[in-house]
Order: sequence, then C-alpha cells, then structure tokens
Amino acid sequence: MNNVIAIGREFGSGGREFGRRLAGELGYEYYDKEVLTEIVNHTSLSENYVHEVIEGKAHRLFPITIEQSFNIAPDYSMQQVQDIFRAQTDVIKKMAHSSNCVIVGRCADYILREEPDIRLFRLFVYADIESRVRRCFDRAPEGENLTDKEMRKHIYKIDKDRASYYEDYTLQKWGDKANYDMCINTTNVNIERVVPYFAKMFK
Amino acid sequence: MNNVIAIGREFGSGGREFGRRLAGELGYEYYDKEVLTEIVNHTSLSENYVHEVIEGKAHRLFPITIEQSFNIAPDYSMQQVQDIFRAQTDVIKKMAHSSNCVIVGRCADYILREEPDIRLFRLFVYADIESRVRRCFDRAPEGENLTDKEMRKHIYKIDKDRASYYEDYTLQKWGDKANYDMCINTTNVNIERVVPYFAKMFK
Repeated sequence: MNNVIAIGREFGSGGREFGRRLAGELGYEYYDKEVLTEIVNHTSLSENYVHEVIEGKAHRLFPITIEQSFNIAPDYSMQQVQDIFRAQTDVIKKMAHSSNCVIVGRCADYILREEPDIRLFRLFVYADIESRVRRCFDRAPEGENLTDKEMRKHIYKIDKDRASYYEDYTLQKWGDKANYDMCINTTNVNIERVVPYFAKMFK
Repeated sequence: MNNVIAIGREFGSGGREFGRRLAGELGYEYYDKEVLTEIVNHTSLSENYVHEVIEGKAHRLFPITIEQSFNIAPDYSMQQVQDIFRAQTDVIKKMAHSSNCVIVGRCADYILREEPDIRLFRLFVYADIESRVRRCFDRAPEGENLTDKEMRKHIYKIDKDRASYYEDYTLQKWGDKANYDMCINTTNVNIERVVPYFAKMFK
C-alpha cells in the first residue's frame, strides 16, 4: 500500500518547496508540474491550454452544467475541460498507485480521498499575507518589478483562481481545514530546517 | 528559553488526550485543569464560578464594554470576570516561564503570542462531528444516557461557549487556522499511536 501525501497550498506559502523537500527527505516521488505534462500527453491539448484550465484561469468561463451551455465562451470547450479533469483524475490515480509520492495541488486530496490501497495524507500549507509577499519578492524572476500592492493583488488572484477550480470540481471549500489531515502555517518558518522534523512522522 | 505547546481543541476531538500524551512523550509539564485551580487560588472566587466563566458559560451575560453596564446580570460581576481573565493571563505566563510545557485551552495561544523568552507552538486539534460523537459516547460517564441528537447538541453548545469566550477576549476567530502554527485532524486517528511520531518534531 503506497503512502501518498497530497499537498494543497496558498500561493507564496512555500507549499511547493515543502513538498519537494519532504519527498526528498522520504525518498518519495515528487509530482507537481509533472501532472500537467501527463495530462497534456493524455489529452493532446496544448500545454498552455491545459495549464490555464487546471490553474482555474479559464474555467470560470464555463458553466458546470450542460443546461447553461448558452454561456460557453467560444474559445473554450466544456467538453475539453471535462476531458482535462478526467485526465487529471486518471493521471493522479496512476501516480498514487505507482509508488510512494508527494503530489502538490491539482485536487489530489479530493481525487484520492476514497481510493483503495492508498494511505492518503492530506496536507494544507498556508501563511500570512506578509510572509507570502516577502517570499514572492525573494523568488521573483529578474525583471519582474511589481509594487507591493501589485504583488498582493497577484497572490490573491492566483488563490482565488485555485479556490474556484477546486471548489467547482470538489464541491468543498478550498483551504477548509476539515478537508485536510493537517494544516501547517509556514509564516516565519524556515522550511528547509523544519521538513526533516516533519518527515519523521512518516518514518 | 522554554518550549510551550498551546493547544486549542474542538470538544470531543481528543485534544486533551493529545496534549497529555504529547507532554508525557516529551517530558513536558502538562496543564489543563491546573490552570483553573491556579486561577481560583489567585482570585479567591469559587471553583465553580471560575469554571463557568472560563468555559464561556457565563460570560455571554456580560457586555464587554463598560458603557453597556445596564445589561449586567446581577449574579455575575464584570469586575470579577475581568479579574479572572487577568489571573488567567498571569497564571499561564507563569507556567510558561517555569518549564517546557503543554497548556490545553484557556486562550494560552493568544496570551503567550508575544511573550518574550518563550518558544511558542500553537496547535489546534479538530475532528469531524461523527468521530467526536463516537468519542464522547465512548467516554461518557456511567449513567449519562444522551441520545445521538442530544450528544451532538451538547458538543456544539460547548464549542459555541468556548468560541464565544475565546473570540470576545482575543478578538480572533476560534479555530481559524491563521491563528495556529499547525492544525491536526484526529478523525479516525489513534491518538496514542500518532503522538510519538508527532513528538519527534520537537526532539
């Protein structure tokens, strides 16, 4: 039976770093953007398109129910979005059954919630907005010169998109602690230093 | 510098057992009802009275601001309630400075949030309502024959009282993950089995 650690995270909280280091510490596979690549392979849609959809940037254009199909924007096909979510489900289940792994985002906590023969641990990583802004500035690509206000807006926008995608597909509230086994606040936490301690729980 | 683990918990989630076992595992002092006893010693009010107040059963009778003093119920003195909270603050700070410890409830997470020379870890323990009902039935004193519906009502009532007390005194939302360093969901968790793994993070 494989151990799977599914990590949801607020943007800028270091959830991805936490997951990557945790996987390294435990010798687990680490899946993040790999989920995207695999979905692209499964659907033959463009990487950009799939990315827009699974990061929630596009899906607000789609009504969830067929009945509202008059609302469909011309550039996005609801069928394609549903294909993407189906592929996402298949890809994540396949990854979970292949080996012990850490999967970041992509609704993995929901997709695997009742999957047999998987020991699932659902983790949510979050932090206060000040520390997320700092983290994003520290890691900003060269040439990205956002003001503090713009950075906050950027962070809130990404979280809002992720929350929308998560909530529409899972019917659960994104970030609600009830949906996770554990939630970790990384405000002022040195992730590199704490992950080895955290990993001990799984050893 | 002492390590202090302040634990907030939903009623029936096993937060107290978690704290007690964690303290045992780490060799820390464990404070729960001891806080109450110490407050009683500090205020010379009756134990019952102090208990009613710090469990939030009484304080809804008091307006927080003096201006509304016409609302004060005759049996409870606002001055006494404020004395109790002051004593609670003193007692908890004293405990925190005496040795490494685990403190369950009593707004310790808030009281110690900016206390110097303390390494504070704020933990919130929660669980879904089904598992809390089961736990409460398993531990019900002999002769307590609540129905399932009554037990749920009892659990929600206690949480509501605790939330009111916490929120009025801290101006923070009780159970909001933003106010904790970590939140642990004990639904279907064997606390005795997991605490030693959790404790490793502090060793």
